[in-house]
Amino acid sequence: MSAITEPTERRQDPYPSRLPEERWLPRQDKTVWSQWRPDAPLTAQQADQFDRDGFLVLKDLFTPEEVKALMAESAALRGGERTLMEGSVITEPGSDEVRTVFRLPEQSPLFDRLARDRRIAGIARFLLGDEVYIHQSRLNYKPGFTGKEFYWHSDFETWHAEDGMPRMRAVSASLLLTDNDALNGPLMLMPGSHKTFIACAGETPEDNHKSSLKKQEVGVPSHAALTKLAAEHGIHAATGKAGTLVLFDCNTMHGSNGNITPFPRSNAFFVFNAVSNRLEEPFGARKPRPDFLADRSEPKAIDIASGKLV
Amino acid sequence: MSAITEPTERRQDPYPSRLPEERWLPRQDKTVWSQWRPDAPLTAQQADQFDRDGFLVLKDLFTPEEVKALMAESAALRGGERTLMEGSVITEPGSDEVRTVFRLPEQSPLFDRLARDRRIAGIARFLLGDEVYIHQSRLNYKPGFTGKEFYWHSDFETWHAEDGMPRMRAVSASLLLTDNDALNGPLMLMPGSHKTFIACAGETPEDNHKSSLKKQEVGVPSHAALTKLAAEHGIHAATGKAGTLVLFDCNTMHGSNGNITPFPRSNAFFVFNAVSNRLEEPFGARKPRPDFLADRSEPKAIDIASGKLV
Repeated sequence: MSAITEPTERRQDPYPSRLPEERWLPRQDKTVWSQWRPDAPLTAQQADQFDRDGFLVLKDLFTPEEVKALMAESAALRGGERTLMEGSVITEPGSDEVRTVFRLPEQSPLFDRLARDRRIAGIARFLLGDEVYIHQSRLNYKPGFTGKEFYWHSDFETWHAEDGMPRMRAVSASLLLTDNDALNGPLMLMPGSHKTFIACAGETPEDNHKSSLKKQEVGVPSHAALTKLAAEHGIHAATGKAGTLVLFDCNTMHGSNGNITPFPRSNAFFVFNAVSNRLEEPFGARKPRPDFLADRSEPKAIDIASGKLV
Repeated sequence: MSAITEPTERRQDPYPSRLPEERWLPRQDKTVWSQWRPDAPLTAQQADQFDRDGFLVLKDLFTPEEVKALMAESAALRGGERTLMEGSVITEPGSDEVRTVFRLPEQSPLFDRLARDRRIAGIARFLLGDEVYIHQSRLNYKPGFTGKEFYWHSDFETWHAEDGMPRMRAVSASLLLTDNDALNGPLMLMPGSHKTFIACAGETPEDNHKSSLKKQEVGVPSHAALTKLAAEHGIHAATGKAGTLVLFDCNTMHGSNGNITPFPRSNAFFVFNAVSNRLEEPFGARKPRPDFLADRSEPKAIDIASGKLV
């Protein structure tokens, strides 16, 4: 497969975006790509639920010891105890507080092991019906008192337009590393929104990711579109104790409110892409985003690991 | 009673604030000032709950017709259909959207009637054990998508320091005019926090209210104090359908998160003060705030009305 998209192919893009006007387009891809079998890493009911809602919240997959070890590792990565790769850290707007650490598996053996775990990567492989690799990984940290909101968006819209991900065949896994309730800025998702692609209005500015990681302004739906989506689908907050796993399809509309409570929110976040869905040239931007946001190297199937992390 | 506080009296202020350092002081005043009687406008259990928690959420006090009429009146006041008194409107930071309309009873016969209703003013009079008057009133409007947070604070801290309210003998009533759930920036309260006065650090700047109405920076507790309060008391979100009434003591710690959901939040807000608790000179500022924030005229007991609003 060529990594260069020809103009003729570009014209057939099923998910054009960054257009003069917003458009609603039907999803052209499956959500669950495998036929369910008794040895699948999800129950048939869970697979159906993911297909219908575009997300799934799984509790008690990890032991208290595993969760404790991951929390300690997360604190060490964030707290300056480790030397982190250049350009892998994003801070809160207007402060030095760490908001995001990218390239988790490359910077932490424990998070590398987590990313390859059957309880995460194994589920991703089942949902995508293909071998998987990590498109992007990060540790998100929303502090108490001053945690900023993250506005509504479909990840696929950005990954397609700015990274060149051709089809909707990727899934995100967010492992909560703090208790999350409805009041400390949890991930909010619109169930069923993954079945529609909202082609966004507006051209992509040069180096858009430099500002969009702090505050996304291009590639977001209009107020009218979000009002209609929320009326149709409602809004679900993915809450749970530390250790809860939230899986969501690449096109599920999501966002999170700010957080003035004293309770911080953090999670480890991995995006799994099907190896058959490797990145091409961006569909809606002049040049692709940097590698820490979207791995553009030859996809290498994850070697899935079983058993406990620690 | 003299409206001028002598320096000797000032020294005996039980609630000094805007100090060089933050201090925790015990509340010196009752929360429920009346003995419960069978003809009280609250049940004995509700009165006990208010005493313990410093707030109370009351549902179904108003008929659907009453709520509908109040919502229509609120929309008219906000939407530019009425000429509003100069200086009575506050807009969202960075936009022209109306966030607050002050002086409700003076600008709307229906809200005047609501403020005098036995179901609101009658409860306030019972809780404060005195005739009551309106210290401040406003219509709050937090839009969808861009509603900003309102940081933690005790109202009494400001009313004492900047308006000269001598004692904790005032109660706020917030009537929800939209459905509020945990995700669209509801009022959050810390149950039991009203029993401690947190004397805040920092001197009051000149004309502090001009910025504090948009973003409060003086008269707010430290992160450490809020962390301790939240650990001791927890955080409760006052949610409910339009028409729900939230009553809270003047010293209950409260705030609200921003709101990226499409669902706006609005409420009508009245502060009732005991007529025996009329304002003096400010306890922690050079000059008092303007009248739309704190009525400094001779307190006149509200004439309480019974029966339906419409």
